[in-house]
Amino acid sequence: MRFFSDNAAPVHPAVFAAMAEADGLDTAYDGDRWSKRLDGRLSDLFEASVRVLWVPTGTAANCLALAALCPPHGGVICHHDAHIQNDEGGAPEFYTHGAKLMLAGGEGAKLTPETIAALADGIANDVHRVQPHAVSITNATEYGLVYRPDEVAAIGALCRARGLRFHMDGARFANAVASAGCTPAEVTWRAGVEVLSFGFVKNGGMGAEALVFFDTDLADATLRRRKRAGLLLSKGRYLAAQILAMVEDDLWLDNGRAANAGAALIADAGGARLVHPAQANEVFLRVTPAEAAALRAQGFDFYDWGPGEARLVVSWDQREADIRPLADAIRALGAPA
Amino acid sequence: MRFFSDNAAPVHPAVFAAMAEADGLDTAYDGDRWSKRLDGRLSDLFEASVRVLWVPTGTAANCLALAALCPPHGGVICHHDAHIQNDEGGAPEFYTHGAKLMLAGGEGAKLTPETIAALADGIANDVHRVQPHAVSITNATEYGLVYRPDEVAAIGALCRARGLRFHMDGARFANAVASAGCTPAEVTWRAGVEVLSFGFVKNGGMGAEALVFFDTDLADATLRRRKRAGLLLSKGRYLAAQILAMVEDDLWLDNGRAANAGAALIADAGGARLVHPAQANEVFLRVTPAEAAALRAQGFDFYDWGPGEARLVVSWDQREADIRPLADAIRALGAPA
Amino acid sequence: MRFFSDNAAPVHPAVFAAMAEADGLDTAYDGDRWSKRLDGRLSDLFEASVRVLWVPTGTAANCLALAALCPPHGGVICHHDAHIQNDEGGAPEFYTHGAKLMLAGGEGAKLTPETIAALADGIANDVHRVQPHAVSITNATEYGLVYRPDEVAAIGALCRARGLRFHMDGARFANAVASAGCTPAEVTWRAGVEVLSFGFVKNGGMGAEALVFFDTDLADATLRRRKRAGLLLSKGRYLAAQILAMVEDDLWLDNGRAANAGAALIADAGGARLVHPAQANEVFLRVTPAEAAALRAQGFDFYDWGPGEARLVVSWDQREADIRPLADAIRALGAPA
Amino acid sequence: MRFFSDNAAPVHPAVFAAMAEADGLDTAYDGDRWSKRLDGRLSDLFEASVRVLWVPTGTAANCLALAALCPPHGGVICHHDAHIQNDEGGAPEFYTHGAKLMLAGGEGAKLTPETIAALADGIANDVHRVQPHAVSITNATEYGLVYRPDEVAAIGALCRARGLRFHMDGARFANAVASAGCTPAEVTWRAGVEVLSFGFVKNGGMGAEALVFFDTDLADATLRRRKRAGLLLSKGRYLAAQILAMVEDDLWLDNGRAANAGAALIADAGGARLVHPAQANEVFLRVTPAEAAALRAQGFDFYDWGPGEARLVVSWDQREADIRPLADAIRALGAPA
Repeated sequence: MRFFSDNAAPVHPAVFAAMAEADGLDTAYDGDRWSKRLDGRLSDLFEASVRVLWVPTGTAANCLALAALCPPHGGVICHHDAHIQNDEGGAPEFYTHGAKLMLAGGEGAKLTPETIAALADGIANDVHRVQPHAVSITNATEYGLVYRPDEVAAIGALCRARGLRFHMDGARFANAVASAGCTPAEVTWRAGVEVLSFGFVKNGGMGAEALVFFDTDLADATLRRRKRAGLLLSKGRYLAAQILAMVEDDLWLDNGRAANAGAALIADAGGARLVHPAQANEVFLRVTPAEAAALRAQGFDFYDWGPGEARLVVSWDQREADIRPLADAIRALGAPA
Repeated sequence: MRFFSDNAAPVHPAVFAAMAEADGLDTAYDGDRWSKRLDGRLSDLFEASVRVLWVPTGTAANCLALAALCPPHGGVICHHDAHIQNDEGGAPEFYTHGAKLMLAGGEGAKLTPETIAALADGIANDVHRVQPHAVSITNATEYGLVYRPDEVAAIGALCRARGLRFHMDGARFANAVASAGCTPAEVTWRAGVEVLSFGFVKNGGMGAEALVFFDTDLADATLRRRKRAGLLLSKGRYLAAQILAMVEDDLWLDNGRAANAGAALIADAGGARLVHPAQANEVFLRVTPAEAAALRAQGFDFYDWGPGEARLVVSWDQREADIRPLADAIRALGAPA
Repeated sequence: MRFFSDNAAPVHPAVFAAMAEADGLDTAYDGDRWSKRLDGRLSDLFEASVRVLWVPTGTAANCLALAALCPPHGGVICHHDAHIQNDEGGAPEFYTHGAKLMLAGGEGAKLTPETIAALADGIANDVHRVQPHAVSITNATEYGLVYRPDEVAAIGALCRARGLRFHMDGARFANAVASAGCTPAEVTWRAGVEVLSFGFVKNGGMGAEALVFFDTDLADATLRRRKRAGLLLSKGRYLAAQILAMVEDDLWLDNGRAANAGAALIADAGGARLVHPAQANEVFLRVTPAEAAALRAQGFDFYDWGPGEARLVVSWDQREADIRPLADAIRALGAPA
Repeated sequence: MRFFSDNAAPVHPAVFAAMAEADGLDTAYDGDRWSKRLDGRLSDLFEASVRVLWVPTGTAANCLALAALCPPHGGVICHHDAHIQNDEGGAPEFYTHGAKLMLAGGEGAKLTPETIAALADGIANDVHRVQPHAVSITNATEYGLVYRPDEVAAIGALCRARGLRFHMDGARFANAVASAGCTPAEVTWRAGVEVLSFGFVKNGGMGAEALVFFDTDLADATLRRRKRAGLLLSKGRYLAAQILAMVEDDLWLDNGRAANAGAALIADAGGARLVHPAQANEVFLRVTPAEAAALRAQGFDFYDWGPGEARLVVSWDQREADIRPLADAIRALGAPA
């Protein structure tokens, strides 16, 4: 009964089947017929002409995006709890050759035009200070909150006004879109996002994420950066096939919805214990060490998230029957201390 | 009838089966039980205590190795036809933060103690010149030649004498070992090799190579570099399972032998056309443009390799019946011009 | 009547004279007889066997130090108001190939063992988080505070206990030593500092700082990094001569004392307006925009330092008569609002 | 009697005088009135609107230029004997974040359109190969040859045709212009050069070179790179003053002519011993070890330059009387072996 991460979930059968179907000879790297279908397929999904590169990890997607948007001497504004700041082992600095992450605050790891502007305004425009060149937001956020299209658009407008480029880390993009009830287009390029890391691995994929360029001019140099980073797998067809399987018949969205629904069950049980509203597939609850121990004693596996908090993540493959026992156990803890 | 690259071959059924078997829940990254078996399993194979990291590409394996062996201000001696120089899109410079590849010559892309020493001796030991810190050889080479254990040991001895670190790019290590008829240990650590890129993708794998540290002190920092390069896949168990399947019952060696045997058939047909002895699974033949066109007209697919030369590569899955037609067609060309 | 920065002050006549004396032929780079005297001369000053490299800027000194102490995948703990974070245009990230500055708080830009430990304790020791490798403090701090030897030693002890390397940015080291009334040794290597950026440019030099290695093993690789950064001036004797002139007869200390004394006059006039105790040659005062304008109208030149604050810096060449008018003008403002 | 390098020569009195004149208070960095005169003064000299940045070394000038012209994933075509390849300790790779130097051959370290085109044509335009983005030539070359304006223009035309950027390392630009008898404009921007490293240090300066942008769009980002490299000296006025003194009344050109004239005396004596035509201030002679020893025994100091060759460099301050003895001693060696 694991709720520690959607990262560790199994692979969706349709993804496995697509990989098996791609087995056989084809051109190496991304010259195969699966890879060549990505641009078209995701252009349909996003209702825009996009360029798409498969990569094996979300970190790679994010960092190739940042390298495309920010020069080595520039900075990227992000939340101080952003994955790129805390969980990528310095990969953004590696890929950008040392660009600086500029850290803003805000509830639930969400940025707003106000927090971005305040941070940028505090940086004198002289040669001694690193200047911001880009903004990166995570949707759904690291605390399970979701940006509505209008919230993204407000940040996009600020970026445009100030000449900042705009990236969205969509490691849980499916959960965000499912939660917001919007189209993929509304919460990305229509709101000013120029590059999206479109995550599948937490949502049923095995090892393929899509780096989606709405600003297609950035794609060609990124092809070279991907190769230069050792990310151009010889047998790219197996990655492309995963992505194609995930977008077929909206599997990505169905999986996102399922995980969100599971999280809602837990959040409902959590009630007053909720640290943040549970808008996607992550639930953060206030629990004492004793309460956490009690839950674990019943077989529930999850991470502590700072003192007195637990993070519970629901994966695409967990159904109501898997989740009810946890919800019941949380309810049985009674009112929070 | 494709002979353009072993890179593009299908995945061995045992590899696919192992991935299917690994499907299910386990810890993310490399905390799973497949990843944890790698050190032990490859220590057995190499008759030494080794540390092993999976990575998705050979370029990543090579470049993490170089970064472990050479500081940014140093240089790596390699052949001017080495894969790291010509086919990795600048990845060695990216991973090492700008170390310099120092290019030596030599027949068939092979280095010798003499060519290495001559290059190193020509570099004044002052602060103005980048100093060599490491040597990297490819086995089998980019031209299908194989280093015998004593040849590697001679380079290893030179490295030890001069304080140079020693890397082997074994993208086709299976073909090399099968050809040399030696043990994996004899041609690596017993001969002074400190880090090996052990390739599986060209030999039946899907997207997993093993970076093998005989100098195990280098492994811990490399764990961090792997993460920092965006190479730490969330679901590492599917990579570890591939490698475990490849070394089970010597599948890697069987596949290497099979490909070598196929290349021998072609080489035999090539006769006087051979540019290099065909010791592994690659055959380089002198063919006129007209002859190349004639072969292609019969459905044989391969790369030109410089003017008047063709490269023919046999993959693990090609059997005698697949290869005979090519051998016959080459024979039918008659004596070379 | 300029109080905006000691950075812009003229060159001390003794420094100019030493450069003139060095004029003539000698070996290029750092092979000349002035450069060769640096190790010995500064070893005397520091009562220890040190290695010394001249560099043209304090940024270069700091960043070569950080590159010697922290790998690209590591982090350096410093204050969020540190010069390396805010005023070096991303140079630390450039020289370290993307190491992360880890920002702690604390009054007057001072770190303490407590703030360092709290920051480090918040970083899980896993591969996803960048790990701290070094601590860098500025003495005197960016707000004109001075670390006493025991304060440095407490940080040094923490560093030793945790395996962190320890750098001191001594852009205003003279002011710090003059203020603390200690020996150079007491506040550096005896307190655990391993590398010191010993500044002269703000204190009478023209364009030469000394990078002092107490851990002398770090010097050789730094010679290569200095060259690789384009910092190895052909005519290094003119830089070495500056440093030698500055340490001759304790000119550096006399200049530091003089500037501190001037700042004390201003601080005395500032009284209740002081934002921080004025322990070195910088004074930070609370002034309203109208008061700042009034001072400027009288010809005093200085920087605003955030809203409602002014920074007043005294240089080595300003004497009491130069400073009295400012002190009087501050007094004439009356009690702060 | 030193002929080992113009690098080590003393500083011209006019340069020293200009530095003394600049002594006194002014704005820090490059906000002072000397620095602000550079653009205008060199625009006059080059008969074009240029942007100029002072830097303390030629390596810094070259590498900032390359970083402005070539992305990290690109390559720079240069001669295999170029200073950037052999004598800058890996600085080009540091500043460009790992761009690859692509080495062409050619007599006397000179590139031609043919050698450049042949090298570029050998590089397949795919993602596996680093692509050339720029060409860098040295004028006068590392072997004392000079490019005529038409030779530069031929390379410039090739660059334009192929979309390659074009840099000139003018560490000995004065010697080149004096030798070619052309205007500075003719051999630079009129011939397609986009950035020039204009050297003064080998020609009477102390520690200031001018990085001249004919493509002025590149200057702003370079201001940030200069800072980020720790090259923005606080007291920039002393560097600007050096450059202004050097271009005043064509001092740079007079010094270049004087050194060239001295080299001509040596070359004349060298006769059949000349390895290369002596077109600037460097002379390369065939001498046996015994002959070299004989010259040294007479007090002449110079470098061996490969086996059986000596490099003799004349500096701006050496007059005929200083050089005659060497010329006579060379003549006295008799005919070469």
